[in-house]
Amino acid sequence: MAHRIALIPGDGIGLEVTPEGVRCLEALARRPGLDFEFTEFPYSCEYYAKHGVMMPEGAIDELSGFDKILLGAVGYPGVPDHVSLWGLLIPLRREFQQCVNLRPVRLLRGLTSPLRNRGPEDIDFIVVRENNEGEYSEIGGRLYDGLPEGMAIQSTVITRKGSERVLDFAFRLAQSRPARHLSSATKSNGIKHTMPFWDECVADVGRRYPDVTWDQFHIDILAANFVTHPDWFDVVVGSNLFGDILSDLGPAIAGGIGVAPSANINPTGELPSMFEPVHGSAPDIAGKGIANPIAMLWTVVMMLEDLSEQQAADDLMGAIEAVTGEGRVLTGDLGGSASTREFTDAVLAHLNG
Amino acid sequence: MAHRIALIPGDGIGLEVTPEGVRCLEALARRPGLDFEFTEFPYSCEYYAKHGVMMPEGAIDELSGFDKILLGAVGYPGVPDHVSLWGLLIPLRREFQQCVNLRPVRLLRGLTSPLRNRGPEDIDFIVVRENNEGEYSEIGGRLYDGLPEGMAIQSTVITRKGSERVLDFAFRLAQSRPARHLSSATKSNGIKHTMPFWDECVADVGRRYPDVTWDQFHIDILAANFVTHPDWFDVVVGSNLFGDILSDLGPAIAGGIGVAPSANINPTGELPSMFEPVHGSAPDIAGKGIANPIAMLWTVVMMLEDLSEQQAADDLMGAIEAVTGEGRVLTGDLGGSASTREFTDAVLAHLNG
Ligand SMILES: CC(C)[C@H](C(=O)O)[C@@H](O)C(=O)O
Ligand SMILES: CC(C)[C@H](C(=O)O)[C@@H](O)C(=O)O
Repeated sequence: MAHRIALIPGDGIGLEVTPEGVRCLEALARRPGLDFEFTEFPYSCEYYAKHGVMMPEGAIDELSGFDKILLGAVGYPGVPDHVSLWGLLIPLRREFQQCVNLRPVRLLRGLTSPLRNRGPEDIDFIVVRENNEGEYSEIGGRLYDGLPEGMAIQSTVITRKGSERVLDFAFRLAQSRPARHLSSATKSNGIKHTMPFWDECVADVGRRYPDVTWDQFHIDILAANFVTHPDWFDVVVGSNLFGDILSDLGPAIAGGIGVAPSANINPTGELPSMFEPVHGSAPDIAGKGIANPIAMLWTVVMMLEDLSEQQAADDLMGAIEAVTGEGRVLTGDLGGSASTREFTDAVLAHLNG
Repeated sequence: MAHRIALIPGDGIGLEVTPEGVRCLEALARRPGLDFEFTEFPYSCEYYAKHGVMMPEGAIDELSGFDKILLGAVGYPGVPDHVSLWGLLIPLRREFQQCVNLRPVRLLRGLTSPLRNRGPEDIDFIVVRENNEGEYSEIGGRLYDGLPEGMAIQSTVITRKGSERVLDFAFRLAQSRPARHLSSATKSNGIKHTMPFWDECVADVGRRYPDVTWDQFHIDILAANFVTHPDWFDVVVGSNLFGDILSDLGPAIAGGIGVAPSANINPTGELPSMFEPVHGSAPDIAGKGIANPIAMLWTVVMMLEDLSEQQAADDLMGAIEAVTGEGRVLTGDLGGSASTREFTDAVLAHLNG
């Protein structure tokens, strides 16, 4: 049976890297027993320009029938974030209860960290971000707007259920890794209500995983430690906002946003999980064919793992690192001059050869 | 007339570095026309152990009569944060309306950044943090605590007045620096109520400073850019939480927390400003006499500047950088083996020599 994949290339370089992901999947599908069925959806800022919405009514329903969603990037200058992101990306994450956002931070073979004296053996962890609640709640508003006494208030909502399901996922993930260690991001010394509550959830869930060691850091010093002690980390778990910050900072020490993959996971499997590179639409380089496809290809690896196609996942990851390891074919962000397509060609040569 | 300084050495290494700051001030006071009068207050976790409070009733009143407060560090294992921090540090910041927290990030001469290929010319900016409201509001609580449906809610409050006064300070500071550039930390794409409001305040205040260029970054990519493009930044302004994160991450790229100074400023000057190194009480190294005093000495420089003692400030900063530049006398965190006292001795030798 073919895996049914919904493709949403989206905007900007999303349109350029998504086809490269598909090329790799098609190459892998030449093997017996592996098959994909792709359906493309044009939901994007361009779609919005034509139809006044980012996606039509019924889109969520239709997408819910797929096994997985592969997303390029959403957002483009001229379309405000509350339209593009809150009209597509965030509703998908929420409607499909993708409450776990997974973002591996690993220095690929051949790539250079901006950190002095740090190599692949020092930088290998994964950020697990709560993806549905927390600081991104829509609860809030303004008072006395436009007046000197004006203010805006917004509530962070952290629920036990929402915390436990992401923490459970994170501890289980830690169990599966050699170091079996988890670090939680907190700020309970400054944020007195929600963060101590989060800490209690961590302690409670942690008790169920006696074979995992865990610690916690306030987010300020945790961010600093990503720079000074990246080797301390294995699985790092945080709220929606803290996870967001850490999962952009992580890639910064490991080759940049052009290589960073991510997965929005529905842990129950009842609704589709969604896979997207971290980079966004990158309007500054869009349309030039020079975007780094690594983030998308690695994202495809994560999708294959989630589909339990471990062999295909390993082979694709191996091919990506074979190319980075050789260092001859790299895109501009990594100091090379290859095009998006040329990099993928090199990966495909390894995959087929 | 002597400057009246309240000293609160506090806890842990605060007790070790504060006297070093005082030694430098006393050395400077041998000059004609410069004089200090010190009064020491024992408010600390030790004080709490004896008296059940971090500071006695009336302490705020008494401290309000001083010109400036020099604080070592607050907090110690065994005393929960809501006692130590919320019983001393945070009330002082709030009661004295120290709504601006200033944290310079500059790579001192002779020190090595953990960032490959980055030197002093690349790392020279200052983080301006809103210090009284925002994400640290105490508004919130729990519902269904202890039950599976439990939750905690906490409100971020951003006011126009609170934002404008820190932004005004930040733009003015940018005006005084050669690059005349300001970057604002936001997250208006994910945090829909408070952050767009903050952005509007930035735009409004920015219009009053046509000679300052400014931009804004979402906090996730801003944190990443501290690592990948530290040279982009001049004055960086953010909310209480964002400023907190950035002002720990900043020092991480510039020699570590052992060198990072800070000032809690009341811009009206009607109530005392407070000066404190960023490092905290550092229980792991407390009592050994090995803490790096640079953060405290640089903090003293900031206090001197705020007292309009620019010459003394320049001389002390010059002496600190003369010692780091020589690289012979450095504490363990910077790869040397000097004690707290030996480092200060070296600074004093330059100051007097
Ligand atoms: C100790 C803590 C409450 C404090 C803060 O977050 O304000 C500290 O991290 C700081 O930056 O001064
Ligand atoms: C675009 C934005 C709303 C989004 C987020 O913060 O979730 C992005 O930064 C991400 O990390 O996927």
